[in-house]
Amino acid sequence: MTTTAERTRKLVYRFDEGDASMSDLLGGKGSNLCEMVRMGLPIPPGFVVSTEVCRDYLTNGHQVPQGLHQSITENLRWLEKAIGRSFGSATNPLLVSVRSGAKISMPGMMDTILNLGINDQVVQGLATLMGEERPAYDAYRRFLQIYGEVVLEVKRAIFEEILSQEKSQAGVSLDYELSADQLRGVVADFKSAIRSEAGVDVPEDPWEQLAEAVEAVFRSWDTPRAVFYRDHNAIPHDLGTAVTIMAMVFGNLGSTSGTGVLFTRNPSTGQREIYGEFLSNAQGEDVVAGVRTPEQISGLFEVMPEAYWKLIELAHRLESHYRDVQDIEFTIENSRLFLLQTRNAKRTPTASVRAAVDMVREGMIDRNEALRRVDPEEVVQLLVPQFEVDLGSEEVRSKFLTRGSPASPGAATGRVYFDASRAASVAAQGLSVILVRAETRPDDIHGITASAGVVTGRGGVTSHAAVVTRGLGKPCIVGCESAMIDVEQRLFVANGRTVREGEDISIDGATGDVFYGRLETTRPKLEQLGEANELLAWADQTRKLGVMANADTAADAIQALAMGAEGIGLCRTEHMFLDPQRLPVVRQMLLNAPAAEEWRRGQDSQPGASRGTPDLPGPVGDFYHALARVLELQTQDFIAILSVMGQRPVIIRLLDAPLHEFLPPYEALLIEMVELRAKGAPAAEIREKEAFLRLVDSHRESNPMLGHRGCRLGISFPDIYRMQVEAIITASAELIKRDVRVNPEIMIPLTVDVREMRRLRQILTVAADRVQENLGVKVPYKFGTMIETPRAALTAGEIAKESDFFSFGTNDLTQMVYGFSRDDAEGKFLRFYIEQDILTADPFATIDADGVGLLVRMAVDAGRRVRPDLEIGICGEHGGDPASVAFCHDAGLDYVSCSPYRVPVARLAAAQAALASGQQ
Amino acid sequence: MTTTAERTRKLVYRFDEGDASMSDLLGGKGSNLCEMVRMGLPIPPGFVVSTEVCRDYLTNGHQVPQGLHQSITENLRWLEKAIGRSFGSATNPLLVSVRSGAKISMPGMMDTILNLGINDQVVQGLATLMGEERPAYDAYRRFLQIYGEVVLEVKRAIFEEILSQEKSQAGVSLDYELSADQLRGVVADFKSAIRSEAGVDVPEDPWEQLAEAVEAVFRSWDTPRAVFYRDHNAIPHDLGTAVTIMAMVFGNLGSTSGTGVLFTRNPSTGQREIYGEFLSNAQGEDVVAGVRTPEQISGLFEVMPEAYWKLIELAHRLESHYRDVQDIEFTIENSRLFLLQTRNAKRTPTASVRAAVDMVREGMIDRNEALRRVDPEEVVQLLVPQFEVDLGSEEVRSKFLTRGSPASPGAATGRVYFDASRAASVAAQGLSVILVRAETRPDDIHGITASAGVVTGRGGVTSHAAVVTRGLGKPCIVGCESAMIDVEQRLFVANGRTVREGEDISIDGATGDVFYGRLETTRPKLEQLGEANELLAWADQTRKLGVMANADTAADAIQALAMGAEGIGLCRTEHMFLDPQRLPVVRQMLLNAPAAEEWRRGQDSQPGASRGTPDLPGPVGDFYHALARVLELQTQDFIAILSVMGQRPVIIRLLDAPLHEFLPPYEALLIEMVELRAKGAPAAEIREKEAFLRLVDSHRESNPMLGHRGCRLGISFPDIYRMQVEAIITASAELIKRDVRVNPEIMIPLTVDVREMRRLRQILTVAADRVQENLGVKVPYKFGTMIETPRAALTAGEIAKESDFFSFGTNDLTQMVYGFSRDDAEGKFLRFYIEQDILTADPFATIDADGVGLLVRMAVDAGRRVRPDLEIGICGEHGGDPASVAFCHDAGLDYVSCSPYRVPVARLAAAQAALASGQQ
Repeated sequence: MTTTAERTRKLVYRFDEGDASMSDLLGGKGSNLCEMVRMGLPIPPGFVVSTEVCRDYLTNGHQVPQGLHQSITENLRWLEKAIGRSFGSATNPLLVSVRSGAKISMPGMMDTILNLGINDQVVQGLATLMGEERPAYDAYRRFLQIYGEVVLEVKRAIFEEILSQEKSQAGVSLDYELSADQLRGVVADFKSAIRSEAGVDVPEDPWEQLAEAVEAVFRSWDTPRAVFYRDHNAIPHDLGTAVTIMAMVFGNLGSTSGTGVLFTRNPSTGQREIYGEFLSNAQGEDVVAGVRTPEQISGLFEVMPEAYWKLIELAHRLESHYRDVQDIEFTIENSRLFLLQTRNAKRTPTASVRAAVDMVREGMIDRNEALRRVDPEEVVQLLVPQFEVDLGSEEVRSKFLTRGSPASPGAATGRVYFDASRAASVAAQGLSVILVRAETRPDDIHGITASAGVVTGRGGVTSHAAVVTRGLGKPCIVGCESAMIDVEQRLFVANGRTVREGEDISIDGATGDVFYGRLETTRPKLEQLGEANELLAWADQTRKLGVMANADTAADAIQALAMGAEGIGLCRTEHMFLDPQRLPVVRQMLLNAPAAEEWRRGQDSQPGASRGTPDLPGPVGDFYHALARVLELQTQDFIAILSVMGQRPVIIRLLDAPLHEFLPPYEALLIEMVELRAKGAPAAEIREKEAFLRLVDSHRESNPMLGHRGCRLGISFPDIYRMQVEAIITASAELIKRDVRVNPEIMIPLTVDVREMRRLRQILTVAADRVQENLGVKVPYKFGTMIETPRAALTAGEIAKESDFFSFGTNDLTQMVYGFSRDDAEGKFLRFYIEQDILTADPFATIDADGVGLLVRMAVDAGRRVRPDLEIGICGEHGGDPASVAFCHDAGLDYVSCSPYRVPVARLAAAQAALASGQQ
Repeated sequence: MTTTAERTRKLVYRFDEGDASMSDLLGGKGSNLCEMVRMGLPIPPGFVVSTEVCRDYLTNGHQVPQGLHQSITENLRWLEKAIGRSFGSATNPLLVSVRSGAKISMPGMMDTILNLGINDQVVQGLATLMGEERPAYDAYRRFLQIYGEVVLEVKRAIFEEILSQEKSQAGVSLDYELSADQLRGVVADFKSAIRSEAGVDVPEDPWEQLAEAVEAVFRSWDTPRAVFYRDHNAIPHDLGTAVTIMAMVFGNLGSTSGTGVLFTRNPSTGQREIYGEFLSNAQGEDVVAGVRTPEQISGLFEVMPEAYWKLIELAHRLESHYRDVQDIEFTIENSRLFLLQTRNAKRTPTASVRAAVDMVREGMIDRNEALRRVDPEEVVQLLVPQFEVDLGSEEVRSKFLTRGSPASPGAATGRVYFDASRAASVAAQGLSVILVRAETRPDDIHGITASAGVVTGRGGVTSHAAVVTRGLGKPCIVGCESAMIDVEQRLFVANGRTVREGEDISIDGATGDVFYGRLETTRPKLEQLGEANELLAWADQTRKLGVMANADTAADAIQALAMGAEGIGLCRTEHMFLDPQRLPVVRQMLLNAPAAEEWRRGQDSQPGASRGTPDLPGPVGDFYHALARVLELQTQDFIAILSVMGQRPVIIRLLDAPLHEFLPPYEALLIEMVELRAKGAPAAEIREKEAFLRLVDSHRESNPMLGHRGCRLGISFPDIYRMQVEAIITASAELIKRDVRVNPEIMIPLTVDVREMRRLRQILTVAADRVQENLGVKVPYKFGTMIETPRAALTAGEIAKESDFFSFGTNDLTQMVYGFSRDDAEGKFLRFYIEQDILTADPFATIDADGVGLLVRMAVDAGRRVRPDLEIGICGEHGGDPASVAFCHDAGLDYVSCSPYRVPVARLAAAQAALASGQQ
């Protein structure tokens, strides 16, 4: 039954009957071709079968609606006229392409058939048209294969097998080396294979071919891979696909034909110049097959100046129309120029930034559009070292060793070392070093700092190595699970090759690839960043979020300022503790802290200051002597960093890491001890070792991430926090005396309850007041906390009563919200979860809006209710991730803080977030 | 300036002018004495200075209001008449007590002065009254000391020093051994000490003494300890205290005087009988000092039958009035009976339950009142073994070794073993064993099961040892930090004593005390639980919450039913895996799981069933053989447990623990390996050891609590979960065939995202369907999840879409919400946090309503919005904690689940929660 409405419904649209707004009905590709025709561009003629037809077909038991065949026939008749060829003609044949195209692009998911309309007679006509038989038979065998696969569901392997036999009989290795005769043989073999596999022939009748092909495209909407893709990308299953039928044009009809590709600007540099390649008397696949080397686009000017100028004019029109760099495919058939496709050009980060800024200067787009258009990740890629060589080359590929997770971008080359101290001492001789470890520990910091790059066997993109290297702006690859790293033997084995200490490797932190040997690198020149700086300045005017940097030293702080940071959002004091020169005195302080605290609690008086060290023997005295020395060192640290930052805020986090991070690894000590015993070492030596082993053991924890760290240390051993605050206030006071304005903020980590804050605020205010009194200087400072446990977020309203500011530590928060240990999850299951689509993204890389994000929003609301002027930021790794920056903007945070090298990313992402939310 | 209103305001109330409703004005103690006087009870006469006076005094610069002295004088004159003595008289003197008493009791926080009105003359009159000088001078020196301390702020140590010198000169060791003359010397020394310390004398004028004492009591409202106490207990600071002034009466005026204590029911058994002690011609402090042995209360009948019958009558009246067992202090002064105090009697758990149930039977209280009155913890104390000996005795105290955290109540005595296997094998010989470990691991389970009790050096009340023992209903003490446990040397050192393997110790899990040697224990007879069972039956009628038990075996399930559980809320399958007989096959399964999974993923077909094992060589075959064997074992386990429970729900949690828990400890293997190397063992042996070490190492994690466990294992190695579901469905089907109705529920642990549930539900439904098809039986089962990560709680609305039920795993949830590792926090900082009032309670013992509880409420709301019939319970340790049960009731949960031995606690606590919320 067909209703009147259906009978009169329009099923097929010529390109000149549609426009860009009709993508619901004509699909993205179809409506875009219509749009180009409306612009008067020379597109090969064609028409579109609407998505409605597809939906009908799929819901009505694979029946095409009445009138479709007639409509297609009418349109094809028109098409024949438009191109001046005849469908099925043995002398001047019209071939067509039949392409799928849904409203939302699903690249590669559905089917396309080229060269349709060919048969044993038509191929002769095509050969005449082309002037030779080889390309005509090549087109024929390609059609047979794709029709066989798509319409008749013959397995691809069967065609590949025939082709490969034919090549081996012919003694050639490449498809295009087959002669016309040999291809004729392939055609015959393909036909009989199809017959035996599918039980039918490919129709000789072009009309029948066309009808079958259209239905096959409809059916391809429901292939498992397409369904999976839509599930994965949240695309509705009831859209259906349109079918675009377009005349094939040929660039291989002689010296007035040709084909090429053109970019409206240089896709490598972004410079405004016509950039492209042209091959006369050729088809696109000749370019792909590499049989002939294409010329520069200027070559077209030599042979067909008219077509050249026409092309240039169209290129400019297209760029103006789409207001972006275009990548245009064209074919010239007997001096007649056809555009086959235009799309926004893929480009290097450099080109992306330059083109965007240039287009603003040219008045083509406004600043907001430029800000929207550049991917923030592109900005950071401008700043890292790059390989000079082509990584795709055979030679480089032959050096491939392993691929891990790309954790910090950039290229590096250097000698492999497996031990932080050895790495540091070799680097000190001026050699470039790559540190390779099973995983890094905080006490590897000197080795990481000294190395050009880091590779680890375990760990994810927020593991220790990853975080530290990103902060340092140096390349890092983590989780190289397929490499067998044997730190003890000082070697690793990957891809069958054994690499020993001192040998060269090269690493690409952007891809995760590790290569054997030296690949030279280059750092981008600063002047290349001219346009980037301009873009970022626009971003600064647009964004609402502040952007700060995580920086632990004066050198970091200088880098942070250079990158445009407005302050330091996280200054981690433990990194200062881990300097190998300082570690002995730090250990002396930490190991004796419990004894000293016990002594102090026994005293009746007001808690002792770290100045005025009690001169006691044993551990208590040792503790206070060490504390006094660390106080001096920390004061100098803070003077250095505060004097760089001046009046910009510097948020200093008090000691956070569990004590065992500062101690030697237990297992190494255990092995030493067992060995001492086995070799019958003197009893005294063993006893001493045992005592130390016990001490280190007493600091071990089953789950250190959930252990005795953060402000739990500050409450257990208040003298340490008191010392740190004295150092901050002393440093600030010294600078104020020198007329330097400073703005320190004291941050308490790992809070779970407001009473921790109340207790510490009371103790630390006393300490701060005493220093100010002694030095006779008033120091302005704030007192706040990290929100990094779920409980802190859940009770943020209470915590706000004792906090001038909140800083979300979303690394820890993510760990606890998911119950995922950063150190373990990546290699054990996290990557598999992402592959299997159980998680859509790595929650340590992009903030989890549903879980972690919900807690953040709850805490922001509760905190601001209690204290409307509460300063709120984020200082986890997420602060430098564009999607997370957008979340922070939406959640109403005041700022994000990230590694200095991610600051430009955050600046741009924050501007984009402001634009997306309509706040500028 | 005094207004008319003030002038006419009543400042002082005689006892007969007030009643129980006037506690705002007269304080708790004062208004209660008034109430007793209104009842016509023989209370020594007295009056109360109102709290208003105190507030005036404190806010008006320590000025008493006009008219106060006059009012006190008038009332004291009345008092003299009422008692027939004169204030300041040297022949028949009236002494008074001056006591503080706020509206809300603050025991011990404020001051009290006894024997006021005494001086050098009055003491003579008192001696006459008493018939001897010693007690009169004793009263005098006591008055001087307390007046000196409270009013004149002389340090207590000064008095103690004088007294101790006097005793040493007299060659006696106890206060009461001092003669009248020696006490006269003490009085003189006290006076001169006060003069030299305070610069003034204690007034000789009784009126002046009284005025000063009243003001001193007012001032005691603002002592630092009182302020701290109010802060701590959220008592307002502006209430002020009343002052009660009451005539002192004397039981030591001859043979018609005496003093005693009486309980209205036996405080030990709860039996309805008069129970008490009496001492003729004595004062209360003689009883305390132990100078004479009191007689049974029946002794009073012998000497003063009239007073005895009067007392019995009053006791009944008091019990009826207060509707609870009373603890009454009385004094008989010259045949005149005075009641000095009555209060609800402290009693044993047995007495508490019996008295409550009896009073319902007697019609004194209703069932709800009985349910409210019994502390749920008392019920559980009825069920555990108890020591037969008196723990307070000198002999027992001399055996004291150490005190840890009481983790599971009950007494046990037995031989110490430091190793689970040795403990198990000794226990198998019928000996009672106490397992002592630094901490327990899951593979100690056979040792724990075999032992009478467990002691650990580390860990808190929710550590492994604690949880397991509570589940088994056997005593456990954890965190004995002061004991040096040397497992290797098989000894521990505590309180200076070394205890070696095989020696006897005794432990009290209710107090945390460990004693050397055997202390005999007794288990309560079942018939003693008659009243408890009746009370619990009433509780069952009243409560709205269901009560289920955590039970892993058929034996547990039988115990759970005996305790009144309505089902099994948590059946942990890993405990079944840890049986030492099974461990080898379990290890074979787990260690080969990654290889097998890799093989399976390489297969094209539908995931292989665990039946129909592929007969492959190497790890894949090993895995499937082990899997098939474990399937058999698990099926038998489930048949056993399901047949015990019948149609009651049994919630079975699929494998949750990280794999490494089933493997030998890494460090032990490491030591073995280093030793092998050191002694030059054959290369092959070392290689094999190394390979195994690497395998175990590959399962180690930095933070196993946040690692590869729970449903992450199920997703990584679906064959294991599939096998468990096959076992559950097979067991159910077998029972259904035998006409046993079953109600299994399959629970997925550690979910973070609904997609985990969707994936697993899909896989496991296929497995369950196949078993049902094969066996031709339809098995009713539910599919649900634990909510134990913050993210599961935060996204519960999504997760509910794939869950028939939720069970809150609040142990893990608490760990993650706080970032507290259960295994580490207790010893490192949690206890200190609680001591320091940074946390008000151990969040692992009582649910944290503000943080964890907020997540629970959010998840309940979100889950029920999506699925109104969602079945919601809790299966963490909190399910057996009364405060947490009350929370669960308020949060709208359907049930709580806890260790079988905690089931009675939960039943009663749930009833109390229903009563408290007005839902019955």
